Amino acid sequence: MTDCIFCKIIKGEIPCSKIYEDDKAFAFLDIAPVNKGHALVIPKEHHETFEDLPDDLLEYLTKLVRKVSKSVKQGVNADGYNIGMNIGKAAGQLVFHAHWHIIPRFNDDGLKTWPQKEYKEGEMDKFKEQIVKFL
Amino acid sequence: MTDCIFCKIIKGEIPCSKIYEDDKAFAFLDIAPVNKGHALVIPKEHHETFEDLPDDLLEYLTKLVRKVSKSVKQGVNADGYNIGMNIGKAAGQLVFHAHWHIIPRFNDDGLKTWPQKEYKEGEMDKFKEQIVKFL
Repeated sequence: MTDCIFCKIIKGEIPCSKIYEDDKAFAFLDIAPVNKGHALVIPKEHHETFEDLPDDLLEYLTKLVRKVSKSVKQGVNADGYNIGMNIGKAAGQLVFHAHWHIIPRFNDDGLKTWPQKEYKEGEMDKFKEQIVKFL
Repeated sequence: MTDCIFCKIIKGEIPCSKIYEDDKAFAFLDIAPVNKGHALVIPKEHHETFEDLPDDLLEYLTKLVRKVSKSVKQGVNADGYNIGMNIGKAAGQLVFHAHWHIIPRFNDDGLKTWPQKEYKEGEMDKFKEQIVKFL
């Protein structure tokens, strides 16, 4: 897509620190990393979100995320890593070209998990019923 | 595995709010949700982490995560959602039975993304080279 920053990166119109490329996918370092070595894995085809990826491309990318994750972990000598996708602006998606984050983690990196909420008595089953309706 | 809390949930030895089950996978609500409706998708077979899942099971689960995500979003009327896995204790993995998180998000939910670091001049390419060595 003409005005998509990730499509421009794939085409080489915007420079990046590329770590992987094949005919279907592309991986590079996030310029604003949560930890250094934070990588992004994207499809070459423009699809806005996780929901829009064709099944075979989703499967392909997931396996590639695993391959790239292992190299990120080894390359920066991390103790662990998070993989994830943000779907929608409310979830923190900034670029609407579907992308996986791979964030290397260290035992002492001080990043905090999000606070947790509490269900009231019986409330969890009501949520369950609501969700199951759409499954 | 005998002492795995998720294996016990699958077997029904520990109660849960189950939202999905088939011969390969299981999904239920997290009892300590980041937002209410926060769901977990797990394989029935015990595999410790993302790295240990056989390829076909990984593919299967990823498609199921997408299916369950859509129902979570609709069921709680979310504006977006995050999907992710924590790999290793340093990354916040608490239960060593591989599991996907699906976290519904709302425009005003106040959850903050992690702070970002800055690369020094030339540093990003050094990280890239380190990572590519292991790819």
